[in-house]
Amino acid sequence: MALTDADRDGRNLVVMWMRDLGLEVSVDSIGNVVGTRAGSTDEAPVMCGSHVDTVATGGIYDGNLGVLAGLEIIETLIDAEVVTRRPLAVGFFTGEEGARFAPDMLGSLVYAGGLTVEVAHDIEAIDGARLGDELARIGYLGSAPCPGLIPHAYVELHIEQGPMLEQTDTTIGAVSGVQGISWQEIVITGQSNHAGTTPMAFRHDAGFAAAQIATFVRHLAEDIGGHQVGTVGMLDLFPNLVNVVAARAAMTVDLRNTQESVLRDAEARLVSFLDELERSEGVTISRRTLARFEPVEFDPRVVELVERTAAALGHSVARMPSGAGHDAQMLARVCPAGMVFVPSAKGISHNPSEYTAPADLASGADVLLQVMLSLADEV
Amino acid sequence: MALTDADRDGRNLVVMWMRDLGLEVSVDSIGNVVGTRAGSTDEAPVMCGSHVDTVATGGIYDGNLGVLAGLEIIETLIDAEVVTRRPLAVGFFTGEEGARFAPDMLGSLVYAGGLTVEVAHDIEAIDGARLGDELARIGYLGSAPCPGLIPHAYVELHIEQGPMLEQTDTTIGAVSGVQGISWQEIVITGQSNHAGTTPMAFRHDAGFAAAQIATFVRHLAEDIGGHQVGTVGMLDLFPNLVNVVAARAAMTVDLRNTQESVLRDAEARLVSFLDELERSEGVTISRRTLARFEPVEFDPRVVELVERTAAALGHSVARMPSGAGHDAQMLARVCPAGMVFVPSAKGISHNPSEYTAPADLASGADVLLQVMLSLADEV
Repeated sequence: MALTDADRDGRNLVVMWMRDLGLEVSVDSIGNVVGTRAGSTDEAPVMCGSHVDTVATGGIYDGNLGVLAGLEIIETLIDAEVVTRRPLAVGFFTGEEGARFAPDMLGSLVYAGGLTVEVAHDIEAIDGARLGDELARIGYLGSAPCPGLIPHAYVELHIEQGPMLEQTDTTIGAVSGVQGISWQEIVITGQSNHAGTTPMAFRHDAGFAAAQIATFVRHLAEDIGGHQVGTVGMLDLFPNLVNVVAARAAMTVDLRNTQESVLRDAEARLVSFLDELERSEGVTISRRTLARFEPVEFDPRVVELVERTAAALGHSVARMPSGAGHDAQMLARVCPAGMVFVPSAKGISHNPSEYTAPADLASGADVLLQVMLSLADEV
Repeated sequence: MALTDADRDGRNLVVMWMRDLGLEVSVDSIGNVVGTRAGSTDEAPVMCGSHVDTVATGGIYDGNLGVLAGLEIIETLIDAEVVTRRPLAVGFFTGEEGARFAPDMLGSLVYAGGLTVEVAHDIEAIDGARLGDELARIGYLGSAPCPGLIPHAYVELHIEQGPMLEQTDTTIGAVSGVQGISWQEIVITGQSNHAGTTPMAFRHDAGFAAAQIATFVRHLAEDIGGHQVGTVGMLDLFPNLVNVVAARAAMTVDLRNTQESVLRDAEARLVSFLDELERSEGVTISRRTLARFEPVEFDPRVVELVERTAAALGHSVARMPSGAGHDAQMLARVCPAGMVFVPSAKGISHNPSEYTAPADLASGADVLLQVMLSLADEV
């Protein structure tokens, strides 16, 4: 989880590997780390990368693949004594998952100038810690400028985290864009009461209201169909006792769609449902936006380059949107950006059984290498 | 909460008051405390009492009223220089709420011989502590025999914790019996997955399944009607993160009815629903009984004595069942037992705004006093 002791240990390991490769390592004031290999010119670098933080139940590929493949590419070029025209940079961005500090893709958002360092430092973790304090505590409150250096282009290799590549027997996804994301925190205030003596009609049960919302979110996503997904992943009852009607419930709703208009419609339907629920259950409901990103379209030139490169290397390839948010969508605000997906076995991610076959990892890294070489030669 | 530092402080205070009144204080091996005032004979005592533990969000009346009214009665008799034929005893029983150690009414269950001390000592708290260790830690692992001395009769004054007395403008409830209680813990195992990339049809969402169960429990109680209540008061998701489909959910279901056959039917319908849910959501569901008590009928002679005494003192009185479990139902296994209810404002309980008007508290204590005097004179 971002900015924990475990994150510090992982960061230190990657930084050591960057230094072993002779890269120039910079750490900015939100903890983003960039390792750069000089080119034959000092024009803007071509950057790849991803993140090294994860979720509490994460696997080993999500994020790490894009960072470690970047280092592998650099090592391959060093071994082959190839010097690119533009510098090549490998970055890892702070707090991509958003599991400890919301919003997700925080470090790349700040890197791209979408949020000030000052505001970001004051974000509070789910465990109550302040982001700026945690950065300093683990030794990653750096001094490199933030917003960061604008790359010539940014390409991110990542596991799909969904089942589509595997199901269509395709090796490489040329990612066309990213679904829009809407994260809301919903707090329901009812009335705690005795579970044995309070007739059903007299209840104002925050737990029941939360269950109704979780059920509604599922049905909403199914009703909209297409790329719409909806998830209640976090739910806490208070006082959370077997014989007490819950006084309060705090929960999150995660809604995503590739089309902004449909995502807005989903949000509006949720709000209407909450209004009805306040009346029917006699509870009060407050909402707070934790994160909101519109759908992103990647640079068509980069998408086409990924597709063409994969095909030239003999891989099956398909254009597809990403269901998950990625650092690449933040970099897309400031430079041409794109992504390379490789298959996730059974579509499983955010789970220790997350798996991508070694051959697929190598194919993805090969595509990334050739795409970066092409971009690095651009004037 | 039972056997915490706060419980120790409350116990010490009540024991000090017992000693101030000159009572002989005994503590048994499950931590039940009984203070006894000698009678003119050493026949079996008439006992009153209740409990001094509470829930995390409790009020000040639930339990405490029955214990403190008992002490008030003793003090009144001392002041009036009245010596009863039988001894009078005031008890408070360990862990009535069951909020930290299940089952509820634990101390009185052991007192009445329904559970061995050895098994009770090994019960684990929701915070992981062992009951026997906690008893010793707070200094209430006593040596009085357990199962305890069988009283001639047991009468418990308690707040109603429901709205019926207030709504019918009645001062005293002559409690006819106690609803049967069924507490189950349900654990759902699904598959954690990415909230953005996993199509709805591919999910095995433990959180959604938990929401379906909570919704079913409400509809089940409403469908059965009458005295049936059903509550999901505790629900924990794992890993409990905004962008991760929950891998696991642990929750409790509390079902109560005055009729054993109806309660069994409710339990059976819940099991059928869980079986269907396992299939439809592709999850596995395990169940464990945390507590199960059949409905209890109090001794008709004691119920009638409470009713007659209240009327003779000029109070409005009604027979009613108790929706909550009480220590009196455990004592009813070994001796004639009954209860006196006083109104709860707005029916609110297990809540800091729990309230009973001072005049109602006094009326309840008066009824308890006269009932105990009647029973103490019996040969």
